[in-house]
Amino acid sequence: MSLKTTNEIDIVRANSSKINDVDFDNLSFGSVFTDHMLVCDFKEGQWGKPVIKPYEPFMIDPSAKVFHYGQAIFEGMKAYKDDNNDVWLFRPDENYIRFNKSAVRMAMPEVPENVFIDGLKAILEIEKNWVKKGLGNTLYIRPFMIAIGSGVIAQPSTQYRFMIILSPAKSYYSGEVKVIIAEHYSRAANGGIGAAKAAGNYSAQFYPQKLAQEKGFQQIIWTDDATHTKLEEAGTMNVFFRINDTLFTAPTSERILDGVTRKSLIDLAKREGINVEVRSVLVDELVAAAKDGSLKEIFGAGTAAVVSPIVGFQYQGDYFELPKIENSIALQLKDKLTKIQYKLAEDTFGWTVKV
Amino acid sequence: MSLKTTNEIDIVRANSSKINDVDFDNLSFGSVFTDHMLVCDFKEGQWGKPVIKPYEPFMIDPSAKVFHYGQAIFEGMKAYKDDNNDVWLFRPDENYIRFNKSAVRMAMPEVPENVFIDGLKAILEIEKNWVKKGLGNTLYIRPFMIAIGSGVIAQPSTQYRFMIILSPAKSYYSGEVKVIIAEHYSRAANGGIGAAKAAGNYSAQFYPQKLAQEKGFQQIIWTDDATHTKLEEAGTMNVFFRINDTLFTAPTSERILDGVTRKSLIDLAKREGINVEVRSVLVDELVAAAKDGSLKEIFGAGTAAVVSPIVGFQYQGDYFELPKIENSIALQLKDKLTKIQYKLAEDTFGWTVKV
Ligand SMILES: Cc1ncc(COP(=O)(O)O)c(C=O)c1O
Ligand SMILES: Cc1ncc(COP(=O)(O)O)c(C=O)c1O
Repeated sequence: MSLKTTNEIDIVRANSSKINDVDFDNLSFGSVFTDHMLVCDFKEGQWGKPVIKPYEPFMIDPSAKVFHYGQAIFEGMKAYKDDNNDVWLFRPDENYIRFNKSAVRMAMPEVPENVFIDGLKAILEIEKNWVKKGLGNTLYIRPFMIAIGSGVIAQPSTQYRFMIILSPAKSYYSGEVKVIIAEHYSRAANGGIGAAKAAGNYSAQFYPQKLAQEKGFQQIIWTDDATHTKLEEAGTMNVFFRINDTLFTAPTSERILDGVTRKSLIDLAKREGINVEVRSVLVDELVAAAKDGSLKEIFGAGTAAVVSPIVGFQYQGDYFELPKIENSIALQLKDKLTKIQYKLAEDTFGWTVKV
Repeated sequence: MSLKTTNEIDIVRANSSKINDVDFDNLSFGSVFTDHMLVCDFKEGQWGKPVIKPYEPFMIDPSAKVFHYGQAIFEGMKAYKDDNNDVWLFRPDENYIRFNKSAVRMAMPEVPENVFIDGLKAILEIEKNWVKKGLGNTLYIRPFMIAIGSGVIAQPSTQYRFMIILSPAKSYYSGEVKVIIAEHYSRAANGGIGAAKAAGNYSAQFYPQKLAQEKGFQQIIWTDDATHTKLEEAGTMNVFFRINDTLFTAPTSERILDGVTRKSLIDLAKREGINVEVRSVLVDELVAAAKDGSLKEIFGAGTAAVVSPIVGFQYQGDYFELPKIENSIALQLKDKLTKIQYKLAEDTFGWTVKV
């Protein structure tokens, strides 16, 4: 895939760059933004011309629908720099498609390709100095859309704003990740919006996450809300379980986000000859496997965290520590994936796209 | 209950009022706002001083958490004017308590009484001309809180803004309301945020609502997401079913908003000697009752719509029309409730509070 350029974007350049003020070795995830942002407004049934302009706050009405009814969706992607100083995206078409799926579910307008994909290319060209070389260095990309139409009546907005903002990043999680299996709280309903990358899905998790953190757990593995017996996903990651030498991960559904990292790891694992089974894993199975020693690994997979090995889980008050193993599949897949993303290994899948 | 005044609020008055430009006989719900708004910010672990100032847009960072993770809650209340030109609130303490319950569930700070309740009193004193006399005329009150802290990392914000905005209103729904019973989509998960008045709950309903509207139905009656067999509530209303002479309404739960109108109608009905049963009504029961003629009424109950009679419902492709009856309990309860709210009948419950 190669992104086509466009002359359909207005560009207003910042007078100066903040880049020299940024300590790229000590970045706190998602807190520093580049010099520019892309903005494109939807009104009267159509999208206007995208504008790239200096990153700055904007004005919004107190009655904007996003504040009252939560019409807000987003994507999370990364740009990588290779040794030739070329900048690469990883499967941006997947994020674009998912973004528009989220839009449909939230009764928001779909964003055209020349706004999302061409806009992305245009802003990354301007901000390419913000993508640093070296494994682990990325420019995190946050396309999002919010309802800016005003009025406190519970109906979809007629006005929207699509934006792309960019934040230089190292990796998302640090330290050992212990998880707790959800026994009461849930992330998504059957027939709900769990499969959409909708803002409301995330704040819904903050309180249970806080409770988990107070008990010393960094993440929650969500279970199906009806029975709490099936393992689903984590807050911002899909989850894989390795029992003996087979990898298991839940099938995507209307409760689970269809992660790009997840599907890439499945393909990579299969290519490596690793047995992968996409099916619901029951909490009881996990506990039994932990008890009999067949549970070797659990790891999360997502753009921000890449691959995040989990050291243990708690369920019904019991803590199960995972064995320290050699030849971790998590680390092996992480290495393969990262090398493709940074153009250090051949991309036989055609996943990487040059900006 | 009497609200105490406070000198802890800064007031910046608008230079002129828009009130003469407003056609109070032709108001579209939630679209016109009064001259002032109340704003109070939370940062560094504490609430600042509330300010009442001219209603206007404000500046916000593109990375504000409310846009990305949906930390946003609200309340909906009304002010009523009696024949002596006094302005009254209806059970504001209930909205205040519910607001803070929503705050806890969304990992947001609770709002102190002197900000919420005293702030409400102060702004209503300033805007009392916007509350018009006459049954059906109200000033709709929208307290809300959003996460204004910046940063695209899925964690609770450290900065919040609480606001109160006011919108003159007539009644919310017009015309006949036909509903469809949810068979696939859902509003809330077990262990989710359905009981919170969180922004994300509303946008989640827009798409299924649009589908329902395309089929000619104004509202959806949600069912439990696990089995779709239990009748729960509508988008912005709790629901009552009258079978023979008994009123049924679902118990509140973590999936259902604990509506102030609902609980007031239950008390009113009991006082009138009407038999009320708070228990889950099954879809099958409803269909059977519609078939054998024992189903007399269905109505929604909420602050915006007050009491909204429903003329028929669709389930699995079959449409069931409700009988046209005399002595509608819905209209009888609406009349009793409204008279209390407008001080036309004695308030034996102590629900009304003078501003
Ligand atoms: C809920 C949830 N699950 C899974 C993922 C992983 O998706 P992806 O690999 O596309 O980043 C994310 C996004 O980061 C997410 O928010
Ligand atoms: C989902 C939902 N259910 C029920 C209600 C009714 O609650 P109340 O009577 O307090 O307005 C509302 C609010 O209006 C609501 O948003």
